[in-house]
Amino acid sequence: MASSSPSPSTHRGQQKCCFHEWMILQEADLSEMLQALTVEDNFGDRDVLLRQLVQKNVEHFQAYADERTRLAQDHVSPFFAPSWCSSLENSLLWLAGCRPSLFITLIYALSGIEIESHIPEFLQGTRTSELSELSLAAPQLSMINQLQRRTIKQEEELSQQLACLQEKIADQPFALIAKESSHVASQNVQADEALDEHSTSMVRILEEADKLRIKTLKEMMNILSPVQAVDFLVAGKKLHLCIHDWGQKRDIKHDYFQV
Amino acid sequence: MASSSPSPSTHRGQQKCCFHEWMILQEADLSEMLQALTVEDNFGDRDVLLRQLVQKNVEHFQAYADERTRLAQDHVSPFFAPSWCSSLENSLLWLAGCRPSLFITLIYALSGIEIESHIPEFLQGTRTSELSELSLAAPQLSMINQLQRRTIKQEEELSQQLACLQEKIADQPFALIAKESSHVASQNVQADEALDEHSTSMVRILEEADKLRIKTLKEMMNILSPVQAVDFLVAGKKLHLCIHDWGQKRDIKHDYFQV
Repeated sequence: MASSSPSPSTHRGQQKCCFHEWMILQEADLSEMLQALTVEDNFGDRDVLLRQLVQKNVEHFQAYADERTRLAQDHVSPFFAPSWCSSLENSLLWLAGCRPSLFITLIYALSGIEIESHIPEFLQGTRTSELSELSLAAPQLSMINQLQRRTIKQEEELSQQLACLQEKIADQPFALIAKESSHVASQNVQADEALDEHSTSMVRILEEADKLRIKTLKEMMNILSPVQAVDFLVAGKKLHLCIHDWGQKRDIKHDYFQV
Repeated sequence: MASSSPSPSTHRGQQKCCFHEWMILQEADLSEMLQALTVEDNFGDRDVLLRQLVQKNVEHFQAYADERTRLAQDHVSPFFAPSWCSSLENSLLWLAGCRPSLFITLIYALSGIEIESHIPEFLQGTRTSELSELSLAAPQLSMINQLQRRTIKQEEELSQQLACLQEKIADQPFALIAKESSHVASQNVQADEALDEHSTSMVRILEEADKLRIKTLKEMMNILSPVQAVDFLVAGKKLHLCIHDWGQKRDIKHDYFQV
């Protein structure tokens, strides 16, 4: 990801900076999409613009994931509970990010909101036009349902892989190293080597989780119309920014604040 | 949990203090158990002492869980990725603690270490006595195998409940509140109420996870002989203290250190 200011010198600084740049970029992308949605459509040229924005957003997500993977090579574990996020955000993490199935929960929720908001008009017989863009058509619902099943299955597979990796910490060689340690544990070469190997596996699973997040998002974008896709991305980014903000406010309220 | 110094005034301070007291208590319990293992057995009186120590350790674990639950009522999310733990420890967390199935991985690993360490003696025909205490007998292996199956099943059920809770953040009412928010999210009463309700569910799942951890530990203690149980607790505490120490050293090495 491009940065105008010089890179911080510490790993923690670089990782934190990567996240902050990502949040700033999301705000900028959100503004651009909100602006685009107000443009009048002339012979489908708005759809071309919206498609470009969807493409751009997916590319930004990919670039963020690539940058995280690069930084994770040095020290992967902070990404699983970053000190630069609020405790609320960290409690919602699945493999260092959001659950991909959350995209599907959100599109169903948005579609439901859309339908509910028009119920009074239907009841009064004042609504004659079609439902607005976020009301999903039957074929779309079917495709999203299939996507949801696939995504949950892949999520479960990755959760299982993480469980195995987490359990390895109580297996060999860690069990033996700890058993033979003196009362106050001391760093030793063998432990360091085993932890390095463990970290390599954690980087791999982080990459796989990011791949699944991006794949799910791309498939969702292919199912939705351009305006639906942009509406969805807008809602998703708003939700992410809200959770970030709510989490910070709640940590401050409860005297819990990370530096 | 008892504390000789006055309680910190902030939630974060109290939560951090609760964890530090737990780590200090674990070191003290470890010393006491190591000492007890050196006592000579006279007509089974060592077994009585070891049983008392096992009981004491389980009670300490229960008291720690009770104190966490009490503190979690005020602000639960920090327990899911505590800022007072190293990033390595946080990357290994399952529902704010260790996976209960890790106890079983550890006992298998310890038993394996024990058997392997005696192979040369068997090969040389110099070993005539029974294997030492951590070599599990066939009925014990069978019971631990059953315990493992039950534990993994219950772990999966709780993981599933956490997944549902995490997905709720993209559902109603959060989706609507975020959708209707202005560009820069502002705290609102509705969001706060919904997050309070979410927190209550998170406290409940934290309690359930702690119950499963303690239940698994107790069942394991019932399967093992007194000396096996103490050997196991010693190894478990050493492993926990080692991971805590390794994690801190690695965070310092990688310029990643939480305050």
